[in-house]
Amino acid sequence: MIKVGIVGGTGYTGVELLRLLAQHPEVELRAITSRGEAGTAVADVFPNLRGRVSLKFTDPAKSSLPDCDVVFFATPSGIAMQQAPALIEAGVRVIDLAADFRIRDVALWEKWYGMPHASPALVAEAVYGLPEVNRDKIRGAHLVANPGCYPTAVQLGLLPLLEAGCVDTAHLIADAKSGVSGAGRKTETQLLFAEASDNFKAYGVAGHRHLPEIRQELSMHAGQDVGLTFVPHLTPLVRGMHATLYARVTREVDFQALFEQRYADEPFVDVLPPGSHPETRSVRAANTCRIAVHRPQGGDTLVILSVIDNLVKGAAGQAVQNMNLMFGCDECAGLSQIPVSP
Amino acid sequence: MIKVGIVGGTGYTGVELLRLLAQHPEVELRAITSRGEAGTAVADVFPNLRGRVSLKFTDPAKSSLPDCDVVFFATPSGIAMQQAPALIEAGVRVIDLAADFRIRDVALWEKWYGMPHASPALVAEAVYGLPEVNRDKIRGAHLVANPGCYPTAVQLGLLPLLEAGCVDTAHLIADAKSGVSGAGRKTETQLLFAEASDNFKAYGVAGHRHLPEIRQELSMHAGQDVGLTFVPHLTPLVRGMHATLYARVTREVDFQALFEQRYADEPFVDVLPPGSHPETRSVRAANTCRIAVHRPQGGDTLVILSVIDNLVKGAAGQAVQNMNLMFGCDECAGLSQIPVSP
Amino acid sequence: MIKVGIVGGTGYTGVELLRLLAQHPEVELRAITSRGEAGTAVADVFPNLRGRVSLKFTDPAKSSLPDCDVVFFATPSGIAMQQAPALIEAGVRVIDLAADFRIRDVALWEKWYGMPHASPALVAEAVYGLPEVNRDKIRGAHLVANPGCYPTAVQLGLLPLLEAGCVDTAHLIADAKSGVSGAGRKTETQLLFAEASDNFKAYGVAGHRHLPEIRQELSMHAGQDVGLTFVPHLTPLVRGMHATLYARVTREVDFQALFEQRYADEPFVDVLPPGSHPETRSVRAANTCRIAVHRPQGGDTLVILSVIDNLVKGAAGQAVQNMNLMFGCDECAGLSQIPVSP
Amino acid sequence: MIKVGIVGGTGYTGVELLRLLAQHPEVELRAITSRGEAGTAVADVFPNLRGRVSLKFTDPAKSSLPDCDVVFFATPSGIAMQQAPALIEAGVRVIDLAADFRIRDVALWEKWYGMPHASPALVAEAVYGLPEVNRDKIRGAHLVANPGCYPTAVQLGLLPLLEAGCVDTAHLIADAKSGVSGAGRKTETQLLFAEASDNFKAYGVAGHRHLPEIRQELSMHAGQDVGLTFVPHLTPLVRGMHATLYARVTREVDFQALFEQRYADEPFVDVLPPGSHPETRSVRAANTCRIAVHRPQGGDTLVILSVIDNLVKGAAGQAVQNMNLMFGCDECAGLSQIPVSP
Repeated sequence: MIKVGIVGGTGYTGVELLRLLAQHPEVELRAITSRGEAGTAVADVFPNLRGRVSLKFTDPAKSSLPDCDVVFFATPSGIAMQQAPALIEAGVRVIDLAADFRIRDVALWEKWYGMPHASPALVAEAVYGLPEVNRDKIRGAHLVANPGCYPTAVQLGLLPLLEAGCVDTAHLIADAKSGVSGAGRKTETQLLFAEASDNFKAYGVAGHRHLPEIRQELSMHAGQDVGLTFVPHLTPLVRGMHATLYARVTREVDFQALFEQRYADEPFVDVLPPGSHPETRSVRAANTCRIAVHRPQGGDTLVILSVIDNLVKGAAGQAVQNMNLMFGCDECAGLSQIPVSP
Repeated sequence: MIKVGIVGGTGYTGVELLRLLAQHPEVELRAITSRGEAGTAVADVFPNLRGRVSLKFTDPAKSSLPDCDVVFFATPSGIAMQQAPALIEAGVRVIDLAADFRIRDVALWEKWYGMPHASPALVAEAVYGLPEVNRDKIRGAHLVANPGCYPTAVQLGLLPLLEAGCVDTAHLIADAKSGVSGAGRKTETQLLFAEASDNFKAYGVAGHRHLPEIRQELSMHAGQDVGLTFVPHLTPLVRGMHATLYARVTREVDFQALFEQRYADEPFVDVLPPGSHPETRSVRAANTCRIAVHRPQGGDTLVILSVIDNLVKGAAGQAVQNMNLMFGCDECAGLSQIPVSP
Repeated sequence: MIKVGIVGGTGYTGVELLRLLAQHPEVELRAITSRGEAGTAVADVFPNLRGRVSLKFTDPAKSSLPDCDVVFFATPSGIAMQQAPALIEAGVRVIDLAADFRIRDVALWEKWYGMPHASPALVAEAVYGLPEVNRDKIRGAHLVANPGCYPTAVQLGLLPLLEAGCVDTAHLIADAKSGVSGAGRKTETQLLFAEASDNFKAYGVAGHRHLPEIRQELSMHAGQDVGLTFVPHLTPLVRGMHATLYARVTREVDFQALFEQRYADEPFVDVLPPGSHPETRSVRAANTCRIAVHRPQGGDTLVILSVIDNLVKGAAGQAVQNMNLMFGCDECAGLSQIPVSP
Repeated sequence: MIKVGIVGGTGYTGVELLRLLAQHPEVELRAITSRGEAGTAVADVFPNLRGRVSLKFTDPAKSSLPDCDVVFFATPSGIAMQQAPALIEAGVRVIDLAADFRIRDVALWEKWYGMPHASPALVAEAVYGLPEVNRDKIRGAHLVANPGCYPTAVQLGLLPLLEAGCVDTAHLIADAKSGVSGAGRKTETQLLFAEASDNFKAYGVAGHRHLPEIRQELSMHAGQDVGLTFVPHLTPLVRGMHATLYARVTREVDFQALFEQRYADEPFVDVLPPGSHPETRSVRAANTCRIAVHRPQGGDTLVILSVIDNLVKGAAGQAVQNMNLMFGCDECAGLSQIPVSP
């Protein structure tokens, strides 16, 4: 059994990790920390876990994290970079669901996240945890930087095109829509039901923190710097993310076949038949990304539709998939739930 | 492996049965029928099942239902009573998720459902499939009448009180709220998003079809005819049912202990600590019923709060629980998913 | 023109007051205060008011409130009782949308609101602002205690029965459901979209602050102390409140006629035809209360359905109706918007 | 008073027309037709109109439409082209909220709408009813083709750029999101609450009927054929439309000033300050379009955000605005309601 610890389990990625790990056949949950809720039973905060998770939140200072095989950080950005080094030193493998180790260029990270980086040396060691790209590196990683939700949906939708070099990489457009849980369990006015319900808006058009992460990875896939316009939107969904991606064709190939072949062996990427429109609920509560490839009116602009559950393939599910790879489990272990629909 | 067939798989209880049965370790899905969708792959109608259910819908006339060990009817009321007799004759066990066999008094059934009953003889043989009451009879049943969603939530909330004979049974009140999926996948105007969203209303106050079912069962538990005022409401939830139950105390007992003891061995009924308010999302997509017992201001009126997922414990999950009992499986087989929250 | 000031305009009752008052033909908005937002244009906080309200929030200390004819308090409870006395002294009339002056028994108020009352003498002077009961007193009032949302929906539904003395007043039941805006614009976890959406729950069953207010008023209408079980629920609506009321008949009358006659001259109470089920959206954004009277199966329990928009007839609209009465305007002035549906 | 008739008043644009016209100071509602609901009181179908609209639906054959000054067609496409000629012949002015007269190229219309056009001669006479473009022509029109909702939101967002000739017109992108009421009051499975709630999807990517309308009008504004990729999405809102528009800069101008100047005198177009993100609820139930202009990271791609209420500026409100122009009323008459928020 893999001994697992979680730092910061009171947010949505935390409770989702718990839901998935408590059903994982090879995991033993050992510790979950929260400064604010230390001593409280996890199931008192998250009643869906009653009878399934018997742990209490523990104070980070008194926790048994160093005895774990792997520790997940489900914390705001800026925490893992402080605590991960000691754990890694102690032989614990770390999966960070926040952004601390996603950006290779430390100065760039510091600019977007507004703080000095506490362990720049570890950034170089970290493996970016998108299994569809880095499966082998993840297997051997001590530190995995779990991708953001927008970066996951956008990359999986553009990857085959960039690898094949068949679109204009200077003018990519990602129009992305996220459910409200993607913003976390923060008590901000704009996240209130009475503000976010029956309402739709873009946000962060001038620059969203996921932009440099997406750009970095897309540039790597393309083999050159890409130009990307990224517009995120807040949608009245609890869970779900839909990326609508626009790319101009520069070289003709069979685009449907390109996607099908690229993802033929991927257990969590499903390329839909031509003409499809994936719905976010078709992946609700599951680790699947579904993709459809369109070329409207036979023009020169491709439209790729990519949907994930932001809390699963966009966060906790992908983290468990990475853990499976790191510990030699079946990659799908604990991740085989069928999406919940309706 | 239990060979399973489903009649009428294009509604919400049908797709929910498929979600649960496709993950059941001892089930082999053999046939799913639909007149309208015959020949269509199930996963084309319900994309959440892509890669998980490979069956096509078949015409009822050409199906292999008689070769199954058990057949579920996820049809409108009035179908099972016509087709079940031949299957039972052929040795197939039947679980009807509709109302055909729920009401013992055939004349009463005919009044509420507006049609003559096609197999009144079978009504007497049918076992009412509420495991918390009829577990042993269900084990040996050939025909199970799976309870309605309102009757499940209301009965589980009132059962301990009626069995203990400690409330006024002449004036029970059940104020119940249902998610919209409880009305089925019917294209009625009132079920449209633009009608049901951001809206709340009572319906069927003069008389709802679940009323005689609830009354019959409560009367059985109480050992005498009960008086019940039942008001259902339509709530802008996809899934979820909340029953708020009012009963006047006639004999003092420790009500919290009464509930805890009654359900101590029940795997799918969770009595919450005193002072709790169960949320529908704490049981979303799971077979659990959560109950809280209140006595506001120490008065003579008890308030019982009971929540279920109308499609799981209120329909498909309870049906699978019944199947597990009928075939000697672990009662929880295929039903151990943790509720999805948020 | 009536010179109007508003204290505490950054919550939902504040913005709703602004929406109504900015369209009122006899109102001149003079001041709106907010400590936190002083100096900010109102329309920057509430973009729906762009081009329609040019005021800026002002610091309460520097405001021109004493020059107003009437001041609305759209503040949390505990503020008006401190500031109203000086304004009333200065000849300003006051309408408090919070609870400071609703409860006649000051000790009872202090128990439920957890603080000492700052102006107990004014409590006796205050008029409870339910026009359907106190129209004449409101006309001459210097201080109006605007009713709570639950108290409005419940009272209008029970008033005719209590006045006619035809139901058992010892065992009234009010099962009430509120949209999330009723909780105010507070950043509490349970009010987040990801918590409140696709979810339903009861709350405050042990005792809600509106209980003593409802009991006090119902007792006055009944001419004796009433017994009331009140269970509020949080519903995934932005606006809307639905009260389902249960009362046992003690004297036979024509209940439909009783309600129709009681409200025949009321501009904002609409008694629906027999058999109706009022929907919350049928009063969305309007000052109307719609009521239906049911007697299921001809039994001894009446079911009254009463719907309002919690922010209009349950708060800001009723306050404007009171202002109209106080200043001799047409009672419907500024309140004639047709409900928005769908 | 303008004598007004409505053909086909049982859909969402019909009830919205009624809401607006019943509050219009210069309108007398004379007739509203519906084959299916003839004889039923309008307020029985739409309870929000109780006490405000006393008309009954009448059979189209027996209606008094020829006595009206203006008739609105709130019908599916294909009806107005059959009935409008006789009315116009009789001196009645016609505003068609459907698509029959929007496309100048009759053959193109017939291809997209799948039927022969019944009055191609009238197409040439019709005025496209976007007041921000055609105000003068609308004043004198006998027949107004009221724009579609997507075309309104997209055109108002791109108009200043095309008129100024400062973007690449060959590769425009319109990523648009609509509330569910935009699809009408049709009982289609995908419009059910349980399908559309907590779900997000694109639709019609291969080609939506509004595409040729948008292309025709954008080409006119640009003075040349434009290339447009248009992707509509279904969003879990009752009302609201958000267009996110992408255009590549070909000539530098002050884009913010360009928009502000273009719409300086427009009563229903509000250009927000730089850096803004308009929310759909900021225009809910009102005839306003709010627009924000962005140029992310100073690159060569402009992002324009444009929001309307699809039932108001996208349908019924714009139709009333056109009527006001046609009959010499104040352009804002009956359209001055402040948006409802929250």
